[in-house]
Amino acid sequence: MSMRNLRFLLYEVFDGVSLTRYDYYGAYDRKMLDMVLQAAWELAQGLLWPRFQEMDRNPPALVGDAVKVHPSVREILRTLGEGGWIAMTVSEELDGQQLPQIMADACHFIFCSANYSAAAYSGLCDGAARLIENFGNRALYDVFVPNMRSGRWQGTMALTEPEAGSSLADIVTTAEPTGEGYYRIQGQKIFISGGDHDGVENVVHLMLAKIKGAPAGVKGISLFVVPKMRISERGDLVSNDVITSGVFHKLGYRGCPIVQLSIGDRNDCRGYLVGEPHNGLQYMFQMMNESRIGVGMGAAAMATAAYYASLEYSDIRKQGRRIKEKDPSLPPVPIIEHADVKRMLLFQRAVVEGSLSLLLQCSKYVDMKRVGSDEEAEKCALLLDLLTPVAKSYPSETGILSISQGLQCLGGSGYCDDYPLEQYYRDARIHPIHEGTTGIQGLDLLGRKVMMKGGKAFELYGEEVRKTISEALGEERLRPHAEALEQALSLLEKVTAHLKGVAAKGDPELFLADATLYLEFFGIVAIAWQWLKQGISVVKGLGAAAIEKEKNFYQGKLYALRFFFAYELPKMGGLAERLMKGDGLTLEMKGAYFTD
Amino acid sequence: MSMRNLRFLLYEVFDGVSLTRYDYYGAYDRKMLDMVLQAAWELAQGLLWPRFQEMDRNPPALVGDAVKVHPSVREILRTLGEGGWIAMTVSEELDGQQLPQIMADACHFIFCSANYSAAAYSGLCDGAARLIENFGNRALYDVFVPNMRSGRWQGTMALTEPEAGSSLADIVTTAEPTGEGYYRIQGQKIFISGGDHDGVENVVHLMLAKIKGAPAGVKGISLFVVPKMRISERGDLVSNDVITSGVFHKLGYRGCPIVQLSIGDRNDCRGYLVGEPHNGLQYMFQMMNESRIGVGMGAAAMATAAYYASLEYSDIRKQGRRIKEKDPSLPPVPIIEHADVKRMLLFQRAVVEGSLSLLLQCSKYVDMKRVGSDEEAEKCALLLDLLTPVAKSYPSETGILSISQGLQCLGGSGYCDDYPLEQYYRDARIHPIHEGTTGIQGLDLLGRKVMMKGGKAFELYGEEVRKTISEALGEERLRPHAEALEQALSLLEKVTAHLKGVAAKGDPELFLADATLYLEFFGIVAIAWQWLKQGISVVKGLGAAAIEKEKNFYQGKLYALRFFFAYELPKMGGLAERLMKGDGLTLEMKGAYFTD
Repeated sequence: MSMRNLRFLLYEVFDGVSLTRYDYYGAYDRKMLDMVLQAAWELAQGLLWPRFQEMDRNPPALVGDAVKVHPSVREILRTLGEGGWIAMTVSEELDGQQLPQIMADACHFIFCSANYSAAAYSGLCDGAARLIENFGNRALYDVFVPNMRSGRWQGTMALTEPEAGSSLADIVTTAEPTGEGYYRIQGQKIFISGGDHDGVENVVHLMLAKIKGAPAGVKGISLFVVPKMRISERGDLVSNDVITSGVFHKLGYRGCPIVQLSIGDRNDCRGYLVGEPHNGLQYMFQMMNESRIGVGMGAAAMATAAYYASLEYSDIRKQGRRIKEKDPSLPPVPIIEHADVKRMLLFQRAVVEGSLSLLLQCSKYVDMKRVGSDEEAEKCALLLDLLTPVAKSYPSETGILSISQGLQCLGGSGYCDDYPLEQYYRDARIHPIHEGTTGIQGLDLLGRKVMMKGGKAFELYGEEVRKTISEALGEERLRPHAEALEQALSLLEKVTAHLKGVAAKGDPELFLADATLYLEFFGIVAIAWQWLKQGISVVKGLGAAAIEKEKNFYQGKLYALRFFFAYELPKMGGLAERLMKGDGLTLEMKGAYFTD
Repeated sequence: MSMRNLRFLLYEVFDGVSLTRYDYYGAYDRKMLDMVLQAAWELAQGLLWPRFQEMDRNPPALVGDAVKVHPSVREILRTLGEGGWIAMTVSEELDGQQLPQIMADACHFIFCSANYSAAAYSGLCDGAARLIENFGNRALYDVFVPNMRSGRWQGTMALTEPEAGSSLADIVTTAEPTGEGYYRIQGQKIFISGGDHDGVENVVHLMLAKIKGAPAGVKGISLFVVPKMRISERGDLVSNDVITSGVFHKLGYRGCPIVQLSIGDRNDCRGYLVGEPHNGLQYMFQMMNESRIGVGMGAAAMATAAYYASLEYSDIRKQGRRIKEKDPSLPPVPIIEHADVKRMLLFQRAVVEGSLSLLLQCSKYVDMKRVGSDEEAEKCALLLDLLTPVAKSYPSETGILSISQGLQCLGGSGYCDDYPLEQYYRDARIHPIHEGTTGIQGLDLLGRKVMMKGGKAFELYGEEVRKTISEALGEERLRPHAEALEQALSLLEKVTAHLKGVAAKGDPELFLADATLYLEFFGIVAIAWQWLKQGISVVKGLGAAAIEKEKNFYQGKLYALRFFFAYELPKMGGLAERLMKGDGLTLEMKGAYFTD
């Protein structure tokens, strides 16, 4: 993880300090923001990174009906809780840090790059607590939120069931009203991250269930707080009839348990309604959207860690000679001198730093949604909605490829566990799956976000990108890239118009058949935008840089930018070609044609 | 694994039976070939597949200085040895089966799809034995070959050293002549597959070393047989001073040990020269080229297995409704009905069956090299040389992507070890690394194979592809694809001519800077060619098919072909764009620009 790059993005590209001019963030200044970053970095180095490998090697286990996790989980959660790291963006009024979102997300990035599994625990507490803060009543808040924000109780999002994953409409967990301030919950939940473990005293599930007699589909889903242990009339914690029936054995992300829950087997599980009945999915989408950005951030963070691990190796490892060198008696060179290794490193850097930039762009929109004028807030809300599936998927999908290239830099060593690459490779594969698969994100982007409010968000997005283009056109060194981005954006608009035409003809399946490819295409253009945006700050920084180290940093940025435009942006052509075709190939293909 | 698809390729596309009209393969007919395939399939089902998971879960371990592997390794090797499966292509004269290469490779594919690690042991024995057969003397043959072909002794290729992986020129293992019929060997070898284990009585390393005083670089490399145990004067096996100093802990491919060897620590290791001194790398390249095809085959086989696992799941798993269906009370559909799932399945099928086709094309070239006329043999040898890096890399690189899409079809279940996808995902990552990384294959293709003999092989390749195009142009349904392939081939020729122009200007680094991208581009065109070739047989087959099941098979093939041309072939555009640019970006990028 590079603090220099993070500061470049936070301060030079996104002018994070400008946020402190708004009242809401007025308690901070640049110096304090720096101190927060530094403190996060120290925690990451001292507390999280030393447990990265051992948490993987000692995965969670079900012992009886209790989930045992690595002993450091307890320490990590308490330390983060006590340090206020699980309440970074919470208002001071609610005892939070009231930190700008962009700074909180930067800290999350730092944590995830050191140990994603460890950071997942606190991220879940944060999101679950905020759901109660925003939509629950005061009584729920008092019992559950402070305990989650101090890291003593684990928060979760309990959505998925054995027969309802991507299709939440089909959940069958039931909630029966009792008239006594709670509902009786019964059902099964699977794939619940942090769903049970001995690093906390209690687990608080933010759970989707259907109140008996509710309408079918998503309109009948309500949100409940369902704790593992409830507070008895005497004030002590007693079992709430939530049993852990299994721990999944995963490819990676092994520091954090993913569990299966059996709820209400003894008909003694109490759930507390959050907000209004049947409105649960809408509430949950707040947490889900935040989690999607969080997943993108985690994916970019892992890929960053992998990039630096492969860079370090490539700098040290000596092998072969330059191609033009024919004398075998000369000493071998560090592999970073080979063009193909530099290509693999630049690919990682271009993808990872582009991803992080897009994610912090989203964070900035969250901030401006909060502190900007009404008009600005509305604009930022729309842009955030539009970009969320992209900011989740692009880092997740390319993160895997990026880590794979990092592993490849190490050759056989990358395949072995003496180096961390193989773990990143395993860990990262979760990202295109959890919090909505890439396929689901594609449908969300094209079917919902691009279409919403008559295409308003997409229109605003085009304006934002063109603002960057027009600024970059004024810079000699950026002009060719600005022109390339204008072409790319125009092509995106052309493809989008074409697809909307298909939708208008009333064939939603044909319209959405290649939504995943559209998402990929959109992502490439979005990252090119972010690189051009970085380029503007790079040109400024390069002009002002006095020392060699700083000049090298900006030069490296320029090469990564050029790399993205030269190697990655051209990939959109093939995608556009396909998206313009719309021959319904995948729709026509019959199931019977697959078998033989 | 689909036997129907294998028969389609072997008999309908490549007319494998025609080989039996040559004297050398005259002992076989279609019926016998079918029996061989069937026997291989039964072994795969009964012996290899049942150990697939448990060999992964119980990986090799170093106990003292001995490597313990899963007990079934011994049984597998013996069974394959006794059944003649480690001598499939060996001549009858040498007690082999004298089976056409294309059939032997098909059997290897069947084995690898069931259990790649298990098949690796026998593949190594086969390759090592053939090196001795072709280049060793009778005495070496008698001692070592029958024992390897019976599966009682393990064969290996021992090339890599701690400081010499991709750059074999730098090996430092030494061989000192003794004048007593052997050399004294000293050195270290790492990443030796099957390099030691208790499933055999002895291990026979085909080892590269430098005779003291030999020229620097690759011209000073000799090939030796270095057994773990040598035969004493009394005829019993005694230690040959080859110590296993470590077993690597790998991401996957865990059924087979990869070890580190310490050779001659007590100055008592005897090695037996194979062929002439200083000619070792040339000999080894025979085994290496075969192994590269073998790796491609293994990669395609794993991806096939993953494809069928994801297909089976997609057929059964119910989730969500068709997009046009708004009624949530209707029952969910099998996910194979969703366009995006079909896209993921078609991607796998297009990549995997295209890869297998290219690999069997190479096998056929091996056969024709052996039995064809002089002219034909020379042509096939050149085409085989040209296509080897492609047949190694395309299945390896796309195999990973294909398996990843297979895993994605299963969602969260794909990430857990209740299903085999996560193991395929781990296992397959070795393929772009072993037997020469993808980067090395790119350099080999562009720097050596495309350039050799004044570009003769590349020219012949163009002719071969155009033969297929011209045949396909006569078929109404294939014409658009034939035209697309002609365009693709022309673009490949244009890019190749451009790059040769760069080479002619005397800048080899710029010429080869994007060789990996050239390899990818070349691979896409080669697979399009193979799909068009399959298409010709599909049209014939569809015309003749009487029963529904057969019609469905051919229809599925047509869709996979169309998918490849619609979704995969367009990827070449971006690659060509980049390759035509040649701005030397990765050459100019300095190491110092990476750090910050």
